Amino acid sequence: MAKVKNISGFPEWLPSERRLEESLLSAISSQYQLHGFTPIETPSVELLTTLFGNGVEEKEIYAVNRAHAGEDDDASLGLHFDLTVPFARFIAQHHHALTFPFKRGSLQKVWRGDRPQRGRFREFYQCDIDIVARDTLPLSADAEVVEVIDKTFCAIGLPPHTVRINNRKILQGFYEGLGVSDDVCRRIIVEVDKLDKVGESGVRRCLSEVLALTDDVINEILVLARLEVPISECESALEKWRGKSALFDEGISELRDVCALLPDETKQRSILDGSLARGLFYYTGIIFEIRFPDYPEFGSLGGGGRYEGLTERFGARGFPCVGGSIGLTRLFSMILEHSLLPLPSSSPTKVLVTVMNEETRRHSMRAARELRSYGVATEVFFKSPKLGKQIEYAVAKGIRYVLFLNEEGSTCDIKDLSKEEQKSIPDLKVWVSETFV
Amino acid sequence: MAKVKNISGFPEWLPSERRLEESLLSAISSQYQLHGFTPIETPSVELLTTLFGNGVEEKEIYAVNRAHAGEDDDASLGLHFDLTVPFARFIAQHHHALTFPFKRGSLQKVWRGDRPQRGRFREFYQCDIDIVARDTLPLSADAEVVEVIDKTFCAIGLPPHTVRINNRKILQGFYEGLGVSDDVCRRIIVEVDKLDKVGESGVRRCLSEVLALTDDVINEILVLARLEVPISECESALEKWRGKSALFDEGISELRDVCALLPDETKQRSILDGSLARGLFYYTGIIFEIRFPDYPEFGSLGGGGRYEGLTERFGARGFPCVGGSIGLTRLFSMILEHSLLPLPSSSPTKVLVTVMNEETRRHSMRAARELRSYGVATEVFFKSPKLGKQIEYAVAKGIRYVLFLNEEGSTCDIKDLSKEEQKSIPDLKVWVSETFV
Repeated sequence: MAKVKNISGFPEWLPSERRLEESLLSAISSQYQLHGFTPIETPSVELLTTLFGNGVEEKEIYAVNRAHAGEDDDASLGLHFDLTVPFARFIAQHHHALTFPFKRGSLQKVWRGDRPQRGRFREFYQCDIDIVARDTLPLSADAEVVEVIDKTFCAIGLPPHTVRINNRKILQGFYEGLGVSDDVCRRIIVEVDKLDKVGESGVRRCLSEVLALTDDVINEILVLARLEVPISECESALEKWRGKSALFDEGISELRDVCALLPDETKQRSILDGSLARGLFYYTGIIFEIRFPDYPEFGSLGGGGRYEGLTERFGARGFPCVGGSIGLTRLFSMILEHSLLPLPSSSPTKVLVTVMNEETRRHSMRAARELRSYGVATEVFFKSPKLGKQIEYAVAKGIRYVLFLNEEGSTCDIKDLSKEEQKSIPDLKVWVSETFV
Repeated sequence: MAKVKNISGFPEWLPSERRLEESLLSAISSQYQLHGFTPIETPSVELLTTLFGNGVEEKEIYAVNRAHAGEDDDASLGLHFDLTVPFARFIAQHHHALTFPFKRGSLQKVWRGDRPQRGRFREFYQCDIDIVARDTLPLSADAEVVEVIDKTFCAIGLPPHTVRINNRKILQGFYEGLGVSDDVCRRIIVEVDKLDKVGESGVRRCLSEVLALTDDVINEILVLARLEVPISECESALEKWRGKSALFDEGISELRDVCALLPDETKQRSILDGSLARGLFYYTGIIFEIRFPDYPEFGSLGGGGRYEGLTERFGARGFPCVGGSIGLTRLFSMILEHSLLPLPSSSPTKVLVTVMNEETRRHSMRAARELRSYGVATEVFFKSPKLGKQIEYAVAKGIRYVLFLNEEGSTCDIKDLSKEEQKSIPDLKVWVSETFV
């Protein structure tokens, strides 16, 4: 007998939960398409050479091999760990067949051999949008990505969130202004990104012990990291450092321009967060994250930013990109854990048609087909026990309406289980039009 | 520089193709839910012990391992090769939390290390429905599965298809009646299933040489295999063999009962096919396949049947199932190859809002937000070059409507690119209600 158990980190939801997850995927996909993002899908599998060297630890990547095969070809494949690297490969491979700017929206599973822990999964959904252009991509695209991710969180109907925004050019330019080398700048970014997890003392220790920075430099770095103002005040808050470096000043004006293009609602939720760095190596400009102020323990459940050089790894120069992503599975596990959204019924069925006996099943089936032709999800009970048993089934599955036919199939009654109310229905079509609008 | 190439057997579609694939997935999902099938999803990964020993060659199964890890736990995982085996495992694991009969509909990718060839993929979508009950599952469920798969093919809008139906009990009972042992019966089923590929002489050779059957027995087997009559005539066509064995007779009455429950349209497309065997070991009763008579080279693109014992492998007795499946990726590759459905535009965008200059971009964005609030997929051009350039972009992406605003954003014109017609729009909401109903 084969063993049956949960595999740690590979979530499996029960029917009501899964229906809620599907409604979230559908809400996200609708928002992405409403903004003109084309649903692209890349294979789950890439060459390992495509996956390696992108800032994700190689030991977190799942390789894929045929169980009993010696084929060399297969030995070089792995499951994608995000949707951004495959997208860069897709652009490099297919750019001749695409119209630019190209806007893609992808909702796919990805796999990461992370240590499983609460809210961390090894198989999970990412929901990404990206805009890629030829040669130049104006900041209107960055603003658009922030707006779409923000609107999508609103469309899901969650507690209030904030959009935390920063710019890699601000960080890099600020550190440069402190006289730090390019390489060390990048390493400071990675350390500052951990502020949330290790606290100021942890970051201070690392900057001092590993990167050998002086206390003065570290103090300055932490002053910037502590900066947190409404995005509308970003320019004035950064003013005192203007001239720190050309890159820093460029960072300020980019922030200001993006801010000017955000809709008012998004702007009101947006904060300049000097500590926001985002760990991934490939960001080069505007970066952002979505957080829930009432639930700080959720961490970041979405975010993204500008990345300019990723397609070059695949031999294609001049394809600047900006993207955003929602970590759906993690978000969904938080929604379940904190009951942030009501669970739907366990079945999509709206009407159960009962069956008096097997001789009259054909009447029940005909009524069900009529209801489906009006778009109403309907099922016929599979046996014909006492009606009480059939109603019990509807109650257990959260099916709201139960239909009863007489022996000739000529008249019918409908019972609304939410009100314990039963009435005679002269015409199914009329009833549908009155009930499901 | 990382290599960029197609990985044989792992399809990747361009935007228009992918949008068509997504519309098919959505049509299938809608049909499944309209009939009350709950969208379940199992992880892509199972224990290898769950996957092995189910009639699929082990060398076709992909194992999954962390690229640089020594963890023993990971070494025992593999990608699922179908959705039926994981479903049986799901039932065995979660039956206490489910209401029976449980009806699931799953649209997921599966992986099989098959030799890649035209129309055969290593990563592909399967779209499955299954009904599982406690202890007994009446034939109403078999008829329902056939009806839903048939209706789903109709909903996609493809050329006419036929539903080929048979019953494992007919085959097994017939062979038993010829005095053949149980084990040999099963092997005959596998050989007869190859009739399509190897022809009568191929099957004859194998039955004689490998299974050592006499010419008389082989002739009888082939007479049954040649049987092909409208399903409404199934009983009379099989009448001459009635009494061959108790199992055979049971097979006839099951066919008759299922046939009686099919809607007329489905019945008219349905054929009793004495050669239909379906290779998989787990079927125990009614089996069926969808074929396209005008395109015999497509082979079977959907099918299924009754399977009674699969959950027992996972320690759960008494969960009879019946299921059906659509091989979407193969179907989709045939649709593309034969241009059976028109390709949609490469973008979901319905309206492109042009931008006169960067100072007036905010007017364009406001108009776009208004259109989106009415549910119309809208994008704003990302730069502000001459309007001709912006119209070219809309043409290239198949965006039908282009909106122009004056400098103050107070008036707008809309151009319908399908008619080369331009008119002034006093009110966006009115225009939307007249245009997108």
